[in-house]
This record gives sequence, structure tokens and C-alpha cells, in this order.
Amino acid sequence: MQRRPFLATLGATAAALTTGTRAQEAPGRKLGWALVGLGSLSTHQIAPALAKTKHCRLAAIVTGTPEKAEKWKAQYGIPDSHVYNYETFDRIAENPDVDVIYVVLPNSMHEEFVIRGAKAGKHVFCEKPMANSADECRRMIAAMKSAGKQLGVGYRCQFEPHHRECMRLAREKVFGDLKFIEAGFGFQIGDPAQWRLRKKLAGGGALMDVGIYALQACRYLTGEEPVEIVAQEVKTDPVKFAEVDETISWSMKFPSGVMASVMTTYAFNGVNSFTAVCQNGKFGMDPAYSYDGLKGWTSKPEVKIEFPAVDHFQTEMDAFAAAILADVAFVPSGEEGLWDLLAIEAIYRSIAEGKAVTVGNV
Amino acid sequence: MQRRPFLATLGATAAALTTGTRAQEAPGRKLGWALVGLGSLSTHQIAPALAKTKHCRLAAIVTGTPEKAEKWKAQYGIPDSHVYNYETFDRIAENPDVDVIYVVLPNSMHEEFVIRGAKAGKHVFCEKPMANSADECRRMIAAMKSAGKQLGVGYRCQFEPHHRECMRLAREKVFGDLKFIEAGFGFQIGDPAQWRLRKKLAGGGALMDVGIYALQACRYLTGEEPVEIVAQEVKTDPVKFAEVDETISWSMKFPSGVMASVMTTYAFNGVNSFTAVCQNGKFGMDPAYSYDGLKGWTSKPEVKIEFPAVDHFQTEMDAFAAAILADVAFVPSGEEGLWDLLAIEAIYRSIAEGKAVTVGNV
Repeated sequence: MQRRPFLATLGATAAALTTGTRAQEAPGRKLGWALVGLGSLSTHQIAPALAKTKHCRLAAIVTGTPEKAEKWKAQYGIPDSHVYNYETFDRIAENPDVDVIYVVLPNSMHEEFVIRGAKAGKHVFCEKPMANSADECRRMIAAMKSAGKQLGVGYRCQFEPHHRECMRLAREKVFGDLKFIEAGFGFQIGDPAQWRLRKKLAGGGALMDVGIYALQACRYLTGEEPVEIVAQEVKTDPVKFAEVDETISWSMKFPSGVMASVMTTYAFNGVNSFTAVCQNGKFGMDPAYSYDGLKGWTSKPEVKIEFPAVDHFQTEMDAFAAAILADVAFVPSGEEGLWDLLAIEAIYRSIAEGKAVTVGNV
Repeated sequence: MQRRPFLATLGATAAALTTGTRAQEAPGRKLGWALVGLGSLSTHQIAPALAKTKHCRLAAIVTGTPEKAEKWKAQYGIPDSHVYNYETFDRIAENPDVDVIYVVLPNSMHEEFVIRGAKAGKHVFCEKPMANSADECRRMIAAMKSAGKQLGVGYRCQFEPHHRECMRLAREKVFGDLKFIEAGFGFQIGDPAQWRLRKKLAGGGALMDVGIYALQACRYLTGEEPVEIVAQEVKTDPVKFAEVDETISWSMKFPSGVMASVMTTYAFNGVNSFTAVCQNGKFGMDPAYSYDGLKGWTSKPEVKIEFPAVDHFQTEMDAFAAAILADVAFVPSGEEGLWDLLAIEAIYRSIAEGKAVTVGNV
């Protein structure tokens, strides 16, 4: 349980981020990406970001909605041969133009399409949360391992420079030993008919969707896995949130003695931050998890966390492509997604059983 | 459980704070205070503050240390007849110069001296935490009620203008409904031999001493009592903190659906704040609980929380005296102290039993 997944891998990812020498050996080579699921995230974030990448290009689309296919074909000049639906998807194995499959479907469909992607012999990049359960994550990891292809999880903040600097401040103990983390992410969710409020599709509510960012922050600041969690839930709108969690607050202990106090909500705006309290000072971000406008701060005027804005999706896709081109293991991989699901399952279990629980192991 | 102690009483206290018409009817009258326990707080905060009050004067001292008695007699011109030790204390009943007894002893001695003060027929002001247990609080309240005298608890922040403005912002819904509170107070405690680290004297550790401020903030921002609590403890120094708690994080639900995430520690500095997240914005204080340098903030540039510094001890003692002179019920009274001990006992119970617990009732 005391593994430090990020400490070891931060360097490797950083190497991949510098684009990798092998990638530079093949300067003309851009990996072809197939987007599976053409919802809001694909439309407004991922497709525009792909156009800005260095190592990637939009090669194919997979959608269950013919109208979307027509629109995207026209907009991005995608030939008919590179358009798939959920039934014809597996034929993507025969398309040499597709190197990477990016799964942007509702959470409950991640497992199926990652495994079908593995069987098609492609690298797969999967949106967060990786799946609805740790068991699904385990099967996805096994399938990718069998295929001998890389599996990446879309934890965009891990490639964002403010977050990376905060990881460094914590790991290098710039403010001394890390002692306590306070983190939270939530927003007031709109349309009550959306898939995010259906347990079968989303697996859970605020925790699965946005709480996971605050959980991630605690994990990558400490470089540790939580060992014990106590959690509490409040539901003020049992109709809208009949199937999924609305507001959750939890506390977790890490092996080093760091304690984290975290919250998430679908009921209101205003929480989007983390604070890392260390022996000799503190630092944090607020807002921390938005697509832009991120702000870092520290308790020492001489230590600043200031970086130009980056496109999170561009950066993470280029990092995944660079790792593939350089043939180095990409992080955050499926194991990262699994660890988060183990913590999330512990949080739900603590709420259901009304007691402190230990976090499951891989 | 859904009582709103502060809502009703904020007005009454405010009236008392304006000094009360009866107090003004007797403009020369200053209440005589007897300080019981001449430790650091009495020496460095309370005695200097008494000198600045409008309605109070230092009339007598009670100490077990003859050297301290000599020093205070000389410094404050206190006659021999107004100096007591813990054995002779009860003779204070015969001293008409003493109106109020201020108990500034280690927590475990509060009950005894409040009850002896009641039997002496004096009003009593008691430092926080009121006692080591809810049962002790109940006996103290009963004794004061029998004596027909007022019992006040030294929750200095309730008289501090930044805190009072935050109460108003929450109660009057200036930012809409209150949704979530994040609060915490801790510091790195020094001398390992001090009474605060002895369970028998202090009743507990960081939670009893400083966590209570963050607990209070949650209670006076909501105007409600918590109904369910889950808590977790970390102990990184089991030698220094062999008897008392070191770091605790807890989550609590209030009847209105507000959730609070709170922490306290004796192991490190850097947490001294609260944030109130509301429907349409947020506000808070950081630092929140220090004797000076307090800072308020809000999410709206047009709403500021800015007040001149006040001496917290002067203000609370004058408020207690004004309530007595005006013959209005003082708040925070013993019931306030009791509610905090009920929540604190629930926190310790949750840690001991490893489960969610409901908060006891008065």
C-alpha cells in the first residue's frame, strides 16, 4: 500500500513530455487518433486541442449518431472509411491510419471500448474516471497488457504546469515535510436528464466526476496511496440526486502520516482548490481544476507558482503520443485509474456502512 | 437538535454590547473581577485587557503560587484582603468588591471552581473549553442556575467584529443560502511538559484547545447544532501525544443540509481559517482565530469584511459586565459550552469506534 507511484514516474513522464528523442527521429510522424464518442467534451475541448498538438492528428471518429458523423466529416475532412459506429467499431483494427483510440464515452462504456480497442491492437487513451469499478479497471489493464499496447488515463492536471510545480514543491520539500492537504472540487450541475445523474451510466455522482480531481491532487502531492478513509454524504435534493451522490466530505490518512480533508459536490459552485500545508509554509491552487484561469499561490512571497496557460487536452495527448513514439511507459496509466477507483469505492463503502474503512489493494 | 441558539440571542448580546441603558444609569459602577489562575493567559492577555475595559476592574486574585501573588499585588495594587489561594477561595463570598469570578485554570479544574463560584454567590466567566465533559458542563449550569447568577464562556471570537460580520453575512444570506463550511485551527505546540498535553488536566489535545474555535465557527455561522459526525485521527508523535489527540479531521452534517469539513492539530502551524461557501458566493477569514491580525475576505469585491482591531478579552469581558449591569441573559452562556462539548465528545467517540455517530443532546 505504501508504493509511491508518482515519485518514480514523474521523471519518465517528464522525459516523454520533452517529446522524446525517438519522436524527433521521425519528425513527420503524427499519431492518428480515433475519437470514440462525440459529446460535448470531444466537440468543445478534444477536437480543437487535437488541432494544436505536435504529435497527434484526428484520424477517425466513432459515433452512434449519424448526424454527428456527417457534421464531423465535413468539419474535419474525415473520409467515410474512417467513420465508425459502435457496431462497426472493431473494423478499426484494419485501419493503419489509427494509432490511438480515445474513449470519451459515458463511464459505464469505458471498459467495453477500452477492451475492444485493445483487441483491435491500438493504444488507448481513456477519459477519467477510468471505469465504474476497480474490477472493471483490472480487466481493462489486463486486456491492454495482453495486447502489448499502452493505456493512458485522461488526468489532464498531471500535465498542467501549475500542478506539476506543486508536485515538485511537495516532493522536493521546498516548504518542508507535507503535513495536511485540504482539497475540494464541485459545481452546480444543470440538466437533470443528463447521463452524469444516472448511476448505471456514470457509476456515481459528484465524486466520480469531479471529486476525483481533488482525490488525484492528494495522491500526486503525497505520492502515496490513502490507507484509511471516513466519509459522509449530504443529499439536499433527493429527486435530482436519486441515483447518485450530491455532496460528500471525506478524510483520509496516508502512510507518511499526512491527512487530507476533501469534499465534492454537484449542488453548488465555489469549491475548486487544494491547499498543501507543510512544516515551513503552505501552497496551493484556487481555482485548481478548471480548463483555464488556474492560479497558484504560496505562503512565501519569494516562491511563486506562475505559468502561462496551456491547453490541458493538447498537452496530455501530446504526452501520450510522445511516450508511444519514444517507447517509454506512459503515466498516468491504467494503474493510476485503478488506484483512484479503489479510493472511490472506499469512500462509498464508508458512507454506506457508516464507518472508517481501509482502502482496497490492486 | 434543531435549535438555533445564536439567531435568537445575537440581538440580545448586541444590545448588551451597546453597554445597556442600566449600565449607563450607573456610570461610575465597574464590576470587580477576581482572576482565578495566574498563568500565561491571565498574565499576558486578561490582566492587560481588564485595564482597558469600560465596565470591569481587577478586584482580586486567586493563585496557588505565593510568588505570583506578591508580584500581582505589587503590580496591580491589590490589597492582602483580596488575595486568595485555592483553599481560601470560598471566602470570596464575603468580599462585596468581587462581582465576577473569571476561571482561567486548566480545563479539569473548571467545574470545581465554577461551582464554588456559584456557591459564593458570584457571576462566573469561564475560559474555553468549558469543561472536560458534557456532564461537567451540565453540573456547572445547574449550580449557576441554583445560585441565580450568570455563567459566561470565554468564546472571544463571538465578540470580534470580523466574526460578527461573518455571522451576519451567513444569517442574512447576503451570499444566498449557506452550503458548506471548511474550517480549521492548529499550531505546533512547544513544551512537552505543559498541562495541555496531560489528559487529566486538559481533557484532550488539539481538539479541546484550538479545534473548538473551528467547531464554534461552524456552529455560529449555521446557527445550528451538528447532527452527525465522522472523524479521523492521525498521530505522528505517539510520545509527545501519548495522552491527547495530535491531528484530527472531521466532517459534520447540520439539519439544514449544510456540511462542514474541519481539522485541528498540535503538530504544525498554518491552518487558522474558515470558508463559508454559499449559493451565490463565499466569504471567510484567514487568519481567523488569532488574538490580532485577523483578515476577512469575500468573493465579491463590493462586499468587504474590514474592521479595526479590538482586544478580544476586553470586548468579551465588557460584554459580560454589560449584560450583568443591564440584567439581560449573556450569550455565550453555559449552554454554548455544553453544545461544544457534546460535539467534541461525538468526535472522540467517532474516532474511538471508527464510525459515524450522532451528537448527544442537552
